[in-house]
Amino acid sequence: MKINPGIKVQVKTSKGTFEGVLMPRTELSDKDHIVIKLSNGYNIGISKDDIKELKEIAEKEKIRHLKKVKFDSSKPAISLVSTGGTITSKVDYKTGGVFPYTKPGELLADVPELGNFVNIKHIHSPFQLLSEDMSSEEWAKIAEQVYKDLNSKDIEGVIVTHGTDTLHYTAAALSFMLRNLNKPVALIGAQRSSDRGSFDGAMNLVCGAHYALSDIAEVAIVMHGSTEDKYCIANRGTKVRKMHSSRRDTFRPINEFPLAKIWPDGNIIIENSNHNTRSDSKVELDTKFEEKVALVYSYPGSNPKVLEYYLEQGYKGVILAGTGFGHVSTQPLHKKFSWIPVIKNAINKGMFIGMTTQTLYGKTDPCVYSAGRLLMDAGVVYLKDLLPETAYVKLGWVLGHTKNLENAREMMLTNYANEFNERIDPKTFLY
Amino acid sequence: MKINPGIKVQVKTSKGTFEGVLMPRTELSDKDHIVIKLSNGYNIGISKDDIKELKEIAEKEKIRHLKKVKFDSSKPAISLVSTGGTITSKVDYKTGGVFPYTKPGELLADVPELGNFVNIKHIHSPFQLLSEDMSSEEWAKIAEQVYKDLNSKDIEGVIVTHGTDTLHYTAAALSFMLRNLNKPVALIGAQRSSDRGSFDGAMNLVCGAHYALSDIAEVAIVMHGSTEDKYCIANRGTKVRKMHSSRRDTFRPINEFPLAKIWPDGNIIIENSNHNTRSDSKVELDTKFEEKVALVYSYPGSNPKVLEYYLEQGYKGVILAGTGFGHVSTQPLHKKFSWIPVIKNAINKGMFIGMTTQTLYGKTDPCVYSAGRLLMDAGVVYLKDLLPETAYVKLGWVLGHTKNLENAREMMLTNYANEFNERIDPKTFLY
Repeated sequence: MKINPGIKVQVKTSKGTFEGVLMPRTELSDKDHIVIKLSNGYNIGISKDDIKELKEIAEKEKIRHLKKVKFDSSKPAISLVSTGGTITSKVDYKTGGVFPYTKPGELLADVPELGNFVNIKHIHSPFQLLSEDMSSEEWAKIAEQVYKDLNSKDIEGVIVTHGTDTLHYTAAALSFMLRNLNKPVALIGAQRSSDRGSFDGAMNLVCGAHYALSDIAEVAIVMHGSTEDKYCIANRGTKVRKMHSSRRDTFRPINEFPLAKIWPDGNIIIENSNHNTRSDSKVELDTKFEEKVALVYSYPGSNPKVLEYYLEQGYKGVILAGTGFGHVSTQPLHKKFSWIPVIKNAINKGMFIGMTTQTLYGKTDPCVYSAGRLLMDAGVVYLKDLLPETAYVKLGWVLGHTKNLENAREMMLTNYANEFNERIDPKTFLY
Repeated sequence: MKINPGIKVQVKTSKGTFEGVLMPRTELSDKDHIVIKLSNGYNIGISKDDIKELKEIAEKEKIRHLKKVKFDSSKPAISLVSTGGTITSKVDYKTGGVFPYTKPGELLADVPELGNFVNIKHIHSPFQLLSEDMSSEEWAKIAEQVYKDLNSKDIEGVIVTHGTDTLHYTAAALSFMLRNLNKPVALIGAQRSSDRGSFDGAMNLVCGAHYALSDIAEVAIVMHGSTEDKYCIANRGTKVRKMHSSRRDTFRPINEFPLAKIWPDGNIIIENSNHNTRSDSKVELDTKFEEKVALVYSYPGSNPKVLEYYLEQGYKGVILAGTGFGHVSTQPLHKKFSWIPVIKNAINKGMFIGMTTQTLYGKTDPCVYSAGRLLMDAGVVYLKDLLPETAYVKLGWVLGHTKNLENAREMMLTNYANEFNERIDPKTFLY
């Protein structure tokens, strides 16, 4: 019997009976197995020898009842900017992959409880992209839309829905591009698509809406705080990182506490009192950005001459993610591994070089070891506790404003969006 | 009064009286301040205007009583391989930096309790380097020395002392270069130098010696498990990463539990029963290594053509640290950001391309999203839950054995040193 991929089947085997959607053959599957996607979203492989019975299950197609979203205009108003990603996607059972919706409103139909406390007045979709496909141009488009909404008198705050892969890069970009932020901006995504029981986007959206109505005027990623559907954490856009490929509580604060814990019922507990608060001023848009910047990791045997490559390609700045306190090889047994001559040459030619640490947690410090002092003397700017990702985004933004190395150094060390934390609480480690 | 750097001084100011060592001028200090290194190791800057009195304090030079290390030959024997780093360093008060000892035995003089339970029979020092200056050549030298000792009949295990910056890269390298490992290999370092009260090297050395006598025949990093001087954790060499720039409990297991908790009194609690055990077989040395491999992170706006640079430089393989499940941009709005054509070209020209995730925790999976499938179809090999660092080291080792892409793929997916964990316990996240 020939059954096409995408059809729901029941398979009887010696290990039990399984029901799920027959998946198409991929490189990973061999001829002797079939693959079934179970209703929990996981795939299992079943040996053909072990199949006692395989049959199609008649099933009505699951119809998404797209209710017309009606919001109560007496409730406080927010706006929604939809940019793509898993939160606005569903599984395509023909390919086994995840497929984007085209209508952002479809998501809202799944979350009727939003109407109880908020009025989503505007829905914008400047583009629909998977987040790994975004670049600074898209960051500027999002910033522009958010800026317009924030300066609209009746909008209390903004939610941006977005893929999770690079959500923290976008969060950092918005933190710098929206100057004098006056209202909350919640960035949310989902780690599971909406047709899975473990879909996290609905709760993230509800918590994001509560954040958008809160008093915290910062760009934050608002997503699951634990593996359960209990509460979300709002993490400062410049101090947050995706730390797990699949968990729903993947976004963790780095060198900082979360701004707040937020429960779906609207309960908010402030975890970090050092935050900016809502004001009546106007937010300013500042999206100038130099896209010729790079993020380079060092490691044993790494080739410093990659800096020359970037120099030849017209790059204006590089963020190094060094080891420990911010080190690269400076005194190796073989000269070819020393970064010092290449760094000096690059800086002489006008390239900005900033140092972060690949440990992610903790601060860089050029004064503890000889490598740090040699690098500092060569002109490398040590960026304290900035995440490599945040430093990369900030450098693009800074070099969009000045190409002068001294001005850039000063701007890179200026605290624009609480991206530096002078007093890192030990309890923030691996929070 | 002119006081030379390196002299212990007492400074009276309006904020109190401070004692410490006067530090030399650096770029960070300005003309209006002096810098004092306090006895706790931290530096403070003091405004010259605020100095009421500054005087030298007569102090006998702290003399290190280098006892002749005598070990009891009736105790079980281990060997020590000293390679440099903070654990065998002290502060140089002339420069303010940390300065390596020349005699590894000096360290042992500080840890007399070792003699109570172990006989350190051999001390080798193939070289003394800061760990950020090491490359695969040094890994091979360490492996060779460890191999000789492990195959010596009366040696129960080996300790390697090493800088912490790249200790996890070396741990991975030894894990692959020492085949059929028969005895324990403990890698230890220190986050504080030996003249600081918080020196962690002594306890790490004691715990490392207990590990070297244990039944666990794996390469492990044995360092502080918490911020207190309570216990160490032994972390599998292929599943561990330096996660903080300065904390003493910086080495954390990734996608895995520690192998064991080890107390300085010799108490060992096995945390991970899935480990290799001591045997009577001989360990084999296999240090073949292709140094033309690179580790490349992707991010929004990253330039895929950096792969062409590595190709032109004769590189044979690249490990990508992608986003999320292992993604790079495949469907961007601007073609220049798409990695697909560059990856296809590189693979056609014989370059191996493996995928890991920059989230560090979790697994890659090419089958969830379209980007993964496009990359897999282009020939990218998905490396499950391998850390980017471990994958980089493994790729150099694998390409030292074969340049055939299919063979390399097979070797990269073979579990040589418990580098893959099929069943990652949720509790290992942010352990």
